[in-house]
Amino acid sequence: MKDFNFYAPTEIVFGEQSEEKVAQLVKKYGGTKVLVHYGGQSAIRSGLLDKVCDQLAQSGIPFVKLGGVVPNPRLSLAQKGIELCREEGIDFILAVGGGSVIDSAKCIAYGVPYEGNVWDFYLGKAKATAMLPLAAVLTIPAAGSEMSESSVITNEEGDVKLGYSNNLSRPKFAIMNPRRTFTLPAYQTAAGVTDMMMHTMERYFTKDDDMDFTTDVAEAMLRSIKNAVFAVLKNPEDYRYRAQIMWGGSLMHNGLTGCGVTEDWATHQLEHELSGMFDVTHGAGLAAIWPSWARYVLHENVSRFVRFAVNVMDVPNDYTDPEGTALKGIEAVERFYHAIGMPVNIKELIGRDITDDEIREMTRKCSRDYTATCGGLKVLQAEDMEAIYRMARG
Amino acid sequence: MKDFNFYAPTEIVFGEQSEEKVAQLVKKYGGTKVLVHYGGQSAIRSGLLDKVCDQLAQSGIPFVKLGGVVPNPRLSLAQKGIELCREEGIDFILAVGGGSVIDSAKCIAYGVPYEGNVWDFYLGKAKATAMLPLAAVLTIPAAGSEMSESSVITNEEGDVKLGYSNNLSRPKFAIMNPRRTFTLPAYQTAAGVTDMMMHTMERYFTKDDDMDFTTDVAEAMLRSIKNAVFAVLKNPEDYRYRAQIMWGGSLMHNGLTGCGVTEDWATHQLEHELSGMFDVTHGAGLAAIWPSWARYVLHENVSRFVRFAVNVMDVPNDYTDPEGTALKGIEAVERFYHAIGMPVNIKELIGRDITDDEIREMTRKCSRDYTATCGGLKVLQAEDMEAIYRMARG
Repeated sequence: MKDFNFYAPTEIVFGEQSEEKVAQLVKKYGGTKVLVHYGGQSAIRSGLLDKVCDQLAQSGIPFVKLGGVVPNPRLSLAQKGIELCREEGIDFILAVGGGSVIDSAKCIAYGVPYEGNVWDFYLGKAKATAMLPLAAVLTIPAAGSEMSESSVITNEEGDVKLGYSNNLSRPKFAIMNPRRTFTLPAYQTAAGVTDMMMHTMERYFTKDDDMDFTTDVAEAMLRSIKNAVFAVLKNPEDYRYRAQIMWGGSLMHNGLTGCGVTEDWATHQLEHELSGMFDVTHGAGLAAIWPSWARYVLHENVSRFVRFAVNVMDVPNDYTDPEGTALKGIEAVERFYHAIGMPVNIKELIGRDITDDEIREMTRKCSRDYTATCGGLKVLQAEDMEAIYRMARG
Repeated sequence: MKDFNFYAPTEIVFGEQSEEKVAQLVKKYGGTKVLVHYGGQSAIRSGLLDKVCDQLAQSGIPFVKLGGVVPNPRLSLAQKGIELCREEGIDFILAVGGGSVIDSAKCIAYGVPYEGNVWDFYLGKAKATAMLPLAAVLTIPAAGSEMSESSVITNEEGDVKLGYSNNLSRPKFAIMNPRRTFTLPAYQTAAGVTDMMMHTMERYFTKDDDMDFTTDVAEAMLRSIKNAVFAVLKNPEDYRYRAQIMWGGSLMHNGLTGCGVTEDWATHQLEHELSGMFDVTHGAGLAAIWPSWARYVLHENVSRFVRFAVNVMDVPNDYTDPEGTALKGIEAVERFYHAIGMPVNIKELIGRDITDDEIREMTRKCSRDYTATCGGLKVLQAEDMEAIYRMARG
């Protein structure tokens, strides 16, 4: 079993009345002037942005607003935010939105006290030792960024999408009102659940399969969320199951399901190039890659895939044919993706055949010009990445 | 579903090399002069106390030692610790031991900056607004105090055992080396597992049974730990399963398994009087009470007990007889307790018949002279408490 650290200090305030606590929480964590960071029109239309700003104003906390975050959030907006924070003397960032807004907020928060270019952190050229405190009012459960140390930013120059992880960036608090997720379209809901399940599956498929407690908890979470998504696709205003999904999204990516194991993350790495190139929804991109990745790496740990098939996907265990059971588990995941409206290959994802040139370009980027590997269960070289992209073309 | 807060900021450093990080962690969390708090001989014999003190000395962190914590830790020693901290200018407390040592450290940490008597907090007469930071080097997995906001102290004047919970008291970090638990005797191991399972069962048995995600995770943890205990009773040096139990003890009491539900805690309250009167091991006392509590409150939520029987205790579901299935689940818990060497009633716990006078005295104390209730699934009045003690006499 691997030694591990677990650190998830974010204060979670969950429920229908949670938003009313935003100003007192900002004060508790030392904010005296706030950047309210958000995305497009939905935070305005829903009234949430006004509600948050009203709470701050009533409590005498000055704030500045910066909207316009898009899915796969852009470095250029974050750089604008960094300048704005410096000019205005901001000391706390409040992200009102989903993972993209929170990740953009993290990038701004890294950048404000840093003299160089914030992109250095994402390139691995520097390590952040200080950042502005930040918090989230969550509207889209998926990325888990509200409790995690991760963030992903896209640099428009070269369409490069890179992640940076640092415990400093774990939000001070996260406000979660499941009612705010009632208006999420079915596709976004399903892509979000795919993303959160993948955050745990990236940790589950490992050769360090002796940390049973982590595995047992991970399987329970995967089963629970897998069932919950059908309830909310049937009835988008089902508070009970919207709540399960919202809370699940945080716990499935705060580190809990990775304690004691070597994590994988190849599917995420492979998908980053897909959404970098085609600007597709991250969760849908994961669904398009995972089945091919799974078939490609299956033999690295067949018994783990059997366990997953039986305990998560409800596949009957054929004890005489472990590989057959494992493959049935992967097929069951494909049926599940289709049932919730997700693709299972790249053709279904982008609506056309991907070209050989595009596959080669994604391979080049994912392998950092043939210098980098990815993955933990099987360490993927560039030729493995290309093979998986080809299997996934559909 | 109930709104909830979740806050578990303790940094967990888990593994065989974890103890070597103690000095750097103390520094990270601002400690400049440390009280090293511990229990009896085992921390000395094992060499752990010396190792911790050597680490501090080598890093130039001055420290003072205070040992002598006993199970069901005493207020008098904590008061001595408060005086010592004040005299020595201590600003950080390091508890080296199990739940009793950590709880004693919490009591000291509450008391140092408080002008009144620290017992006020436990009596509910005051609420702590500041305390010394503290951390744990854990040696006995059971109480979960290394990650929780709870502590329990026994006041020798009147043998009163009271708890106090406050988020301020969550340890800054907890160092967990499963190897340190190899020497735990079988009885302590089993009592510890009983305690940690009960921390989750006290939250599981609720009328708010619509938070499926929490329930699914709780069941996975209970199943996992229930299986792990047999491995370590067979082979006390089984690192893999000692690790499962050690990490399980923290997660089953850090609040995770209570998110969105009304908690119960009647079994703990009833047990506090047992261990207050007979100085028995807390976990064993819980085992002696729970089956009687469960039968007494079963009809408050039969379907919950059925779910527990089937999903945790592996009882086949007789769909035509929910109550029968629920009762078989309670019987399965009794068989489990016996299998790991725990009692299932008070006679087995204390080795003799409990007297009517003793039952009346425990009832008087548990009900705070007939003024207080306990429990959430069923709110117990004094007559209910007495009835459960009588059912549990064996």
